[in-house]
Amino acid sequence: MIYGHGDDAHSQTHHIRDDFSSNIRPDGPPVELIDHLRARLSAVARYPEPAADTVRRQLAATHQVSAAQVLVTAGATAAIYLVAQAHRARASLIVTPTFSEYEDACRLHDHKLAFSARARFFADPGSHLDTAPRPDLLWLCNPNNPTGEAASRDELLALIDAHPRTLFVIDQSYADFCLVAPILPADTAVRENLILIRSLTKTLGIPGLRIGHVFASASNIAALARHLQPWAVNTLALEAAAYYLAHRARLAPPLETWLAHTRAFSRAVAGLEGFTPHPTATTFFLVELARGTSAALKQYLVEKHGILIRDAANFRGLTSRHIRVSPQSPWQNHRLAQSLQTWRG
Amino acid sequence: MIYGHGDDAHSQTHHIRDDFSSNIRPDGPPVELIDHLRARLSAVARYPEPAADTVRRQLAATHQVSAAQVLVTAGATAAIYLVAQAHRARASLIVTPTFSEYEDACRLHDHKLAFSARARFFADPGSHLDTAPRPDLLWLCNPNNPTGEAASRDELLALIDAHPRTLFVIDQSYADFCLVAPILPADTAVRENLILIRSLTKTLGIPGLRIGHVFASASNIAALARHLQPWAVNTLALEAAAYYLAHRARLAPPLETWLAHTRAFSRAVAGLEGFTPHPTATTFFLVELARGTSAALKQYLVEKHGILIRDAANFRGLTSRHIRVSPQSPWQNHRLAQSLQTWRG
Repeated sequence: MIYGHGDDAHSQTHHIRDDFSSNIRPDGPPVELIDHLRARLSAVARYPEPAADTVRRQLAATHQVSAAQVLVTAGATAAIYLVAQAHRARASLIVTPTFSEYEDACRLHDHKLAFSARARFFADPGSHLDTAPRPDLLWLCNPNNPTGEAASRDELLALIDAHPRTLFVIDQSYADFCLVAPILPADTAVRENLILIRSLTKTLGIPGLRIGHVFASASNIAALARHLQPWAVNTLALEAAAYYLAHRARLAPPLETWLAHTRAFSRAVAGLEGFTPHPTATTFFLVELARGTSAALKQYLVEKHGILIRDAANFRGLTSRHIRVSPQSPWQNHRLAQSLQTWRG
Repeated sequence: MIYGHGDDAHSQTHHIRDDFSSNIRPDGPPVELIDHLRARLSAVARYPEPAADTVRRQLAATHQVSAAQVLVTAGATAAIYLVAQAHRARASLIVTPTFSEYEDACRLHDHKLAFSARARFFADPGSHLDTAPRPDLLWLCNPNNPTGEAASRDELLALIDAHPRTLFVIDQSYADFCLVAPILPADTAVRENLILIRSLTKTLGIPGLRIGHVFASASNIAALARHLQPWAVNTLALEAAAYYLAHRARLAPPLETWLAHTRAFSRAVAGLEGFTPHPTATTFFLVELARGTSAALKQYLVEKHGILIRDAANFRGLTSRHIRVSPQSPWQNHRLAQSLQTWRG
């Protein structure tokens, strides 16, 4: 799906003052990181390292795995397409509703596709993974976009270890936005049926630069690496990753504050007539509308209030009554709550 | 081939003072362009346009074709892989010696491969294109990397029009570095068997940012676009392209000067004992060694003189006696000539 994601202010004719449409850190990229990139801008005059080996080694050291267990990609989306390509024409089960690119990447590479709603899947995963047609790959976003649900490391590892013939592709793009314990990179060392996808794009607030990575066993990484193009990750994305990995604690998103804003905003939305927020374990959540459509609400908010939300109707399994919001600052959240209150549907 | 290209200073332990290994503009990116990117750096806080539509429209307007005839990619290399993927498992003929990524991209996507040496191909193209097994695709780099040879627009269009069942994939990454008339984007409008690949990376001297594009008929572009991932081209690459297209004449490489330096340096190399430069139509050329190997010469130049050249032995059809050089400033060229003279092979 090339079009139809969030952060689509570029396709709006009205000025957007508040953007709730994209699940990236709301405080923007760290000033210090942007200053560093500005100082390093002349690095664009050189080719990037062909396979991003410096950042690969840094990620390995940071997460205490071997460099052979890491691959650097042009964003998490490129990693998703790489996995689908390396496992071309296999049978894939996608846990929905979720990020649409798993489905698109699988279709592009001729996978046989099946879908399972997240609640049903977790209620009885064996019935999805053990019975024919058994999937070769299971695609799971955790914490999940767009619902904000998160299964814990223990729960997932038990599932993974109980199903050694299924390759679990777990997208952890939002792991830094959630307090539920994620699967660790080191957990991939001894598991041939586990691929973790991560994003730095969202954590650092630099989606324009495209930087993500994959952790898996050395043999799984080697299988993916056969499908890499040289210079796939640009020089500044590599500079950003290198700088972040050297200064992680200082540059991390303000998670506690952001989660507190999220809880407060969810309560405010719950108090509005006609809007039901879904529970979330992370920093974004779905809202269900009692009247009108998500498309009409999105248009209303853009035109009348300069506010952009994510119309969530195009997520498989959701409806034209779902929107997704990624809370911003308290005053921006207040403006959205007030604007929702004025909508007549 | 992830490793083994030029611009590999990052893998050298010695300081590189002069880099002749990469065919990008020798005067570096325009200062004005870098200043613009520095000023626009905060744009990395937004997702890039999913399919680069603004630059797509700008390219269309600049080259007087419809926007439906243009695709923007993360460098010419990404375009090569996209074409190979969209024409998966077809029969491809590659004119050699040439850029290795055509072969790698075709192998990755299960093409049946054949090769033809450039001189033999142009001496009798019909015998390669008309007789069984007839190729579905013909890959041609023009001007050619690494040889610097260039066929003219008239010659190529006659060939293309005489072979409507062959899809000509012509990589024009070096068209801005050569005075031989290139095929024009507008030439693709009426030709269903022509795909042009171009690079801005090399023209602007910003290989770190990855920006290229494709011109073809609307139906050929639509076939490629089905294989695109969203956000494949990063925000700063798009900023660079947009700025260049708005200020083309001023930001173009100093071609006349550069060609003059190339001719002078080629004459200087021809005057050295044991080095034979190949004729070139562009700003880089091959040199054949009478003694020793290209690998040993490369190592010698790095270690003793801080000079990086392209060991051309890994181009299919070349040998361990070939190097490629992309002349730099006259004093740098002088240093390389002097250093070559001291080599004992």
